[in-house]
Amino acid sequence: MPVLQPIVNLAELLSQKGITDVVVAPGSRSAPLTLAVARHPRLRVRVMADERSAGFVALGMAQQSRNPVVLICTSGSAVYNLAPAVVEAYFQQVPLLILTADRPHEWLHQQDGQTINQTSLFGSHVKRSYDLPADYSHADARWFIERSVNEAVTLCRSAAPGPVHINVPLREPFYPTADEPVRPEPVRVIDTLPAQPTLSPESWHGLLNEWDQYERILLAVGQIPHDPALLTVLRKISEEFMIPIVGEITSNTFQNNLFITHTDTFLTGMDDAFGESLRPDLLLTIGNSFLTRNLKTFFRRFPARRHWHIQPTTDRINDSFQSLTTIIPSEPLAFLEKLFADLDYQQFLQGDDADDTSAFLNRWQTADRQAARLVRQTVSGDDTRLTDWSAVQLILDQLPGPSVLQLANSMPVRYANLCGVDEAQQLRVFANRGVSGIDGCLSTAVGAALMTDKLVTLLIGDVAFFYDRNALWSAPIPPNLRIVLLNNDGGHIFRIIDGPSRQPELETYFETPHGYTARNTADDARIEYTICNTLEQLQSLLPDFFAVSQRAKLLELSTDKRVNHQQFLTYKAKSSTIGSQR
Amino acid sequence: MPVLQPIVNLAELLSQKGITDVVVAPGSRSAPLTLAVARHPRLRVRVMADERSAGFVALGMAQQSRNPVVLICTSGSAVYNLAPAVVEAYFQQVPLLILTADRPHEWLHQQDGQTINQTSLFGSHVKRSYDLPADYSHADARWFIERSVNEAVTLCRSAAPGPVHINVPLREPFYPTADEPVRPEPVRVIDTLPAQPTLSPESWHGLLNEWDQYERILLAVGQIPHDPALLTVLRKISEEFMIPIVGEITSNTFQNNLFITHTDTFLTGMDDAFGESLRPDLLLTIGNSFLTRNLKTFFRRFPARRHWHIQPTTDRINDSFQSLTTIIPSEPLAFLEKLFADLDYQQFLQGDDADDTSAFLNRWQTADRQAARLVRQTVSGDDTRLTDWSAVQLILDQLPGPSVLQLANSMPVRYANLCGVDEAQQLRVFANRGVSGIDGCLSTAVGAALMTDKLVTLLIGDVAFFYDRNALWSAPIPPNLRIVLLNNDGGHIFRIIDGPSRQPELETYFETPHGYTARNTADDARIEYTICNTLEQLQSLLPDFFAVSQRAKLLELSTDKRVNHQQFLTYKAKSSTIGSQR
Repeated sequence: MPVLQPIVNLAELLSQKGITDVVVAPGSRSAPLTLAVARHPRLRVRVMADERSAGFVALGMAQQSRNPVVLICTSGSAVYNLAPAVVEAYFQQVPLLILTADRPHEWLHQQDGQTINQTSLFGSHVKRSYDLPADYSHADARWFIERSVNEAVTLCRSAAPGPVHINVPLREPFYPTADEPVRPEPVRVIDTLPAQPTLSPESWHGLLNEWDQYERILLAVGQIPHDPALLTVLRKISEEFMIPIVGEITSNTFQNNLFITHTDTFLTGMDDAFGESLRPDLLLTIGNSFLTRNLKTFFRRFPARRHWHIQPTTDRINDSFQSLTTIIPSEPLAFLEKLFADLDYQQFLQGDDADDTSAFLNRWQTADRQAARLVRQTVSGDDTRLTDWSAVQLILDQLPGPSVLQLANSMPVRYANLCGVDEAQQLRVFANRGVSGIDGCLSTAVGAALMTDKLVTLLIGDVAFFYDRNALWSAPIPPNLRIVLLNNDGGHIFRIIDGPSRQPELETYFETPHGYTARNTADDARIEYTICNTLEQLQSLLPDFFAVSQRAKLLELSTDKRVNHQQFLTYKAKSSTIGSQR
Repeated sequence: MPVLQPIVNLAELLSQKGITDVVVAPGSRSAPLTLAVARHPRLRVRVMADERSAGFVALGMAQQSRNPVVLICTSGSAVYNLAPAVVEAYFQQVPLLILTADRPHEWLHQQDGQTINQTSLFGSHVKRSYDLPADYSHADARWFIERSVNEAVTLCRSAAPGPVHINVPLREPFYPTADEPVRPEPVRVIDTLPAQPTLSPESWHGLLNEWDQYERILLAVGQIPHDPALLTVLRKISEEFMIPIVGEITSNTFQNNLFITHTDTFLTGMDDAFGESLRPDLLLTIGNSFLTRNLKTFFRRFPARRHWHIQPTTDRINDSFQSLTTIIPSEPLAFLEKLFADLDYQQFLQGDDADDTSAFLNRWQTADRQAARLVRQTVSGDDTRLTDWSAVQLILDQLPGPSVLQLANSMPVRYANLCGVDEAQQLRVFANRGVSGIDGCLSTAVGAALMTDKLVTLLIGDVAFFYDRNALWSAPIPPNLRIVLLNNDGGHIFRIIDGPSRQPELETYFETPHGYTARNTADDARIEYTICNTLEQLQSLLPDFFAVSQRAKLLELSTDKRVNHQQFLTYKAKSSTIGSQR
């Protein structure tokens, strides 16, 4: 048996467990892993030199496929360079399987190169850490490897999905000799059957009773991947029970005749009376994190009497609004479908209760329409100068669907949420809102574009773009990628938020202007590049920008941070009037 | 008292503890820390947007000053982006004080942005982790902060120096109001007096007795910062006791009439007789890691009977050559000076022993001279094509001193070590050999150049350069920086080492060619750029390249990986003849 046969078998096992895609960062210690996956006929392998970008590319791929993507890197600080993507995957609940090559542990602290303490390096930011043996001679060692890989892949996928780390100490020789076969032996797949958490009839009865006690019920959706079945049941619940469905752009619940999507505009600066009029008695939440402070602050300031959070796991109490009363262990879709089926429609519609319920929904929808109008006025007013926000509105209006929209932190995702998109556009929206860092937004979009044939459009600011430009360095850049770069020459969010904008240190210590344009970066990466600084020009450029092409495209919008800021201040003054005495 | 007064005081305490330099990555959660250091009159603050680069810039600064440099970043994945520099600082023993802003811990797992488990995030790769309280109202909380900062700064500096992490949970408001004073209160400095480990007279007597028993004594120097006093005592020990002093380029023990500096060339491919003839009876080692595999393999294959390692700490057994017998707790300089003073010179020189000792030294020095000649022949032979190696030799020959030489991983530091530099050049050599990653070599050189008026010359390959190009993005680039980029279009080390060069996957999965030149990167960074592809041209360019200028300079050397490889193969065939039957 070749000495590294268990590593070759590992690749085969990954494939048999349904893994299809691997991202490799080159290294010598990791060579046995690299060769094992590269020579496997059913694994697609991409290679990227910068581990930080490689990590986020894998994250973007797994966002699309909802299937674990394997990440391979060599030993040493390379592993830490994966950590930003790993922690984002953990909190965003994206499945990643990280295989890190390591020196055998006996070499730690022996002044040997690329040797750090890799065991459990990602701490509590992976679902589990495995540490494989460095010696394979005993049959139990091979049993342990096979069993661990089976378990790790299952764990990546099971609720809540997330990253799992397998540390792989490897002894030399790393490379097969010319006559050494690199063929897998038969491997043993261990199936873990899927099962859903199921409430007892008594629990269901209790929930339905509680539901019936309240007139004002509201359902708020945090970040969640696009799911047509979920949208269908949300629509039915809203229509038949007159329940406001509140979502943000990252909820993938878009503008239609029902859903509430402009909370960031109208849940701000409100007086108590207006707030009280919107306060639900019973609040249901599904999904991951909420995007805007205004929405979170509203639900904390006007807490519901009862707050049910529906999540498939029971190990944590996620009390985001400080008013949680009940955790309902279920997949949101399954829960809502059963809820809709079990609710007594006839009883619900009778009496005064129905009037109050209808008025409650009406107040939310009216405020939402007012907010939508205000946003339109803001970005389509007399001032036709190009701003970040007006550019985002125009681009969202023209975005062809069905397609994928990637929203970078920190301002682009906020602007896009302020604008909203229409349900008819058939977009699928993604953003790294697990940890909300700017560190891998470009790489994530590259990864997404590698996994779909649809157009992938990224809205990104200049700091996030240049921070992560290695995304465009060493990987093939898929031609379906469209990058819209909002370049206001610095960390513009610091001017938009209240605190730093008042400090004399604003430019030097927060915004940090750099004077870069993306022309050279695009040139190096051999992608199509256009720069634009008027709204009119942008309008004329967009059809061609979104057209199918042989190469990815980058459209740089050069905006003035002072004009952006002025537009935002004007908007802010107006938005606070929606919720106060008019 | 302003609510964030303890944070303002913290900056004052850092200053009073002797901290002078801070690197800040912008953020909102970290704003109180940023403002406190920015408004402190005696702290120099630099701002960089990419935390990974910021971390290595701080490392490069602290390499020069040997004084802790403070790193500040915001909460979330930002912290993980510092980790590559932190782990390098830990194993390279460079003092860094890392202040990470955090959400108060109660917000963990509550779907809040930029909230991860930051407590002890760097694991065993910092000397200690502190977690400050989020609430300052109780006097004991303020006492804890003050005491912890005192301890942390002391710990950064004490043997072995290294990184210390202070996690700083911060509540809003982060920003002072206009009329709020940001002035420190009186702070309390707690001095920890320095003390040296001192051996008992009995221990000394035992060591001197052991020393006297052996004729063949060798002293090998691992990575250690340049120290004139250390060089003086090494020279005296070699001259008066005929002891080979073996060092690599990272040892800062350069070519003179005594020191052995070409081990990588002659300690390879040797037969047993030659190896035995070089085997020491007693081996002394000082310093951090050794660079080359050939040297390490030699000492493992021909282990000394006794191996003393001199290190100031006693908490770890560093048995790099698997033959260690004695750890001597001492600063190397103090130990060697006392050893030199206490040794009995008269006794030593008498009898046959002296002949054997002299012959032993002679064998090492002869092999070293042969190796030096072979290297010269390799790089200055009939073939005048530009190769990475011949370029390094020419540059090292012409490097003006006194100046700082930064050597990037992975091939540049090896080529430079093969060439060697002359003691008369008065260079100070640095390389990230703690973990030996390529991830921050450019940023480290930027940091070094910020802290010295001397010329700082970096030799770097293309993968390391582009990986870390954000070093040149958002910081002012000091004009005394000189970057020599050896661009062979990929990870050339994989072609040089034996294993991957034999695999069909070499180019796609290991070298990963990218086709980039640095022209655009230099243009964006507004530094002077020259590209060159012949040795003759390089020769003519160097005087101007090293001349003082208003801007930093980048000299890109475009080489062919196949020509590089051919040169290396020719050299390798010859080098193995030094140590085999001739």
